[in-house]
Amino acid sequence: MEFRVNSKELEKHLSKIIPAVPTRTPMKILENFLFDINDGLLTIYATDLDLSLKSFMNVVSDANLKLVLPAKLLYDVVRSLKETTITFQVQQQNKKINLLTDTGKYVISYLEPEEFPEIPTVNEENKQEVNIVEINGDELKEAIDKTAFAMSKEEVRPALQGTLFEFTEEGLRFVTTDGHRLVNLLKRNINAPIKKQYIVPERAINILSRILDEKIVKVYFTNTYASFKLNDIELISRLISQKYPDYASVIPLENEYLLKVKTQELNDTIKRMMLFSTSNTRKVKFSLSKENIEVKAEDIDTGASGEEKLKCEYQGEPMDIGFNSQYMNEILSHLSDSEEVLFKLHSPTKAVIIEPVEKKEELDLMMLLMPVRINA
Amino acid sequence: MEFRVNSKELEKHLSKIIPAVPTRTPMKILENFLFDINDGLLTIYATDLDLSLKSFMNVVSDANLKLVLPAKLLYDVVRSLKETTITFQVQQQNKKINLLTDTGKYVISYLEPEEFPEIPTVNEENKQEVNIVEINGDELKEAIDKTAFAMSKEEVRPALQGTLFEFTEEGLRFVTTDGHRLVNLLKRNINAPIKKQYIVPERAINILSRILDEKIVKVYFTNTYASFKLNDIELISRLISQKYPDYASVIPLENEYLLKVKTQELNDTIKRMMLFSTSNTRKVKFSLSKENIEVKAEDIDTGASGEEKLKCEYQGEPMDIGFNSQYMNEILSHLSDSEEVLFKLHSPTKAVIIEPVEKKEELDLMMLLMPVRINA
Repeated sequence: MEFRVNSKELEKHLSKIIPAVPTRTPMKILENFLFDINDGLLTIYATDLDLSLKSFMNVVSDANLKLVLPAKLLYDVVRSLKETTITFQVQQQNKKINLLTDTGKYVISYLEPEEFPEIPTVNEENKQEVNIVEINGDELKEAIDKTAFAMSKEEVRPALQGTLFEFTEEGLRFVTTDGHRLVNLLKRNINAPIKKQYIVPERAINILSRILDEKIVKVYFTNTYASFKLNDIELISRLISQKYPDYASVIPLENEYLLKVKTQELNDTIKRMMLFSTSNTRKVKFSLSKENIEVKAEDIDTGASGEEKLKCEYQGEPMDIGFNSQYMNEILSHLSDSEEVLFKLHSPTKAVIIEPVEKKEELDLMMLLMPVRINA
Repeated sequence: MEFRVNSKELEKHLSKIIPAVPTRTPMKILENFLFDINDGLLTIYATDLDLSLKSFMNVVSDANLKLVLPAKLLYDVVRSLKETTITFQVQQQNKKINLLTDTGKYVISYLEPEEFPEIPTVNEENKQEVNIVEINGDELKEAIDKTAFAMSKEEVRPALQGTLFEFTEEGLRFVTTDGHRLVNLLKRNINAPIKKQYIVPERAINILSRILDEKIVKVYFTNTYASFKLNDIELISRLISQKYPDYASVIPLENEYLLKVKTQELNDTIKRMMLFSTSNTRKVKFSLSKENIEVKAEDIDTGASGEEKLKCEYQGEPMDIGFNSQYMNEILSHLSDSEEVLFKLHSPTKAVIIEPVEKKEELDLMMLLMPVRINA
């Protein structure tokens, strides 16, 4: 039994699915790929049980076959080759596979397919309820890239360790929060009429962001799994089976003071202030007046401090308000495609809303940040 | 007291000398720069006691002054600024220094200069014997880049943890070895008539490689220190005070079998073989015949193996010989500017010489590699 494949094409597929292979696991079988050839279609599987990736490509093969190959070694060998045809020759008598090229021969042991865990299937034929949306890969990537940073890293509230995909009458909404900040992004152009919430874990979100391209993605949700079907690859992830907190209740509706400031300029200032805001709270203080913000940070331990004055447009009462400089930096970095940002404030103790001034079509984006206490 | 300096110019100087600042040290004073302004010339010092860097630049100053500033914080603040003029204002009453720009003010505590360790001076006026060579910065960098990789990482033989600078009648010789491989590079165009050996420690070599440019470097050696004087920076390093082993005695003179092979092609093969040569010895086997090399490596634990056939020109008896694949890879990588390399061999147990086929003017380069045993 043998099959042939172009080395660079195989490398492209392996590079996309190898992120699902766990680097340290007591289940050694997960350090492998499953190769499944059926009528000339090669499907390669990788999984860590929670998250699976499948890749599809055509190969020239003289038989149908299934075998399990060491993921890292195979990937390293394939990507070390120049563009060439690789012939995979199965040696059943000693359970080895030969990779043959013009000048080289590489021998790798394989395992039987029965040892590889089953990968869940998510499609229209599932018995349970399935919700489906189609979304442009670029737009999904943008939504993920603008929201993913605010997912919680802490295991105490598992629901927050993922991104909320909320089907609403207005469109598909993406929400992330760690309790200190929150990002709320609505894609109006995605038809998602049923009211329903799904939480996709951080690992799936991160891998998705890497494999998305400009093509259409078909997304399937059941109550336990999500599947993202791209052109020649599919990502299947277990969902987080917790209830997402009522995020809408923390968003203030009547922050009447408005502050407009240049995004990049403020973020450059914040980055310098981070050198001085080294305490636990990483506090940076904004002193707001009609035309200026004074930004100040101080390192209590060393007595070092920094302060800068920036131009702004502020409509509201003069106010001193403190923020975590790292959170502010992350928010502004994720709003950098808008030249200016708008802060909506009410008082030094109430959540602040930060929005891009330049709106995008069919996309509503809102970030929220809790202030930190400033000691009078 | 105050002085003014361009932010980007100061950043350039600080970036060059900050490598001398130790990252973890029980002597907290070493985490600082010493600033010394004398008649408008600012000298900045950084040291870890074994290695020191001095940087020279002109500033506009209203007084002579000396003060000690936290290295990392100062460097981070300066490089976070756009191009601007920074005014340093000394506040003697509270031992702080203000850095003022158009829009910002940064306050940093300073220490008194007396706390900073003394930096040795190495120049013609030293009482002890001084040997001096002048060398083009690019050429010194090339010599270092081709030899540094073979210095020993092991502390058991301190002399090998540095690069030998040998003054000879033929020129200046650079030697590195770790007992398994050796690099011997002679710069014929450097006039170094006295017969004398100096060992420069690895850390100095690494930093030197980063700061060298195309300008002339004046190198001073005393019995205990070396000083490398660049245009606006000086590196002073303690020398390794051990005797260098008699490297010449291990270089075989009568390796009569000659193998010529394309450098890049062989190295690409070696890189693939490294995926299989995973045992302690990282063994790769060369089987030499008149027109071909067969290269083979095997992972005993998993039974995986790789073999490739390459074209070559070989004059000698057919031979199987084993090498450490990682050492071979490093040697070939450092000979990559010669399209072909020449191996001089005698037997599977005797040191092999590897040289570039394309010779450079005024530069003799020879690498030596001990074979590893091949189990029949």
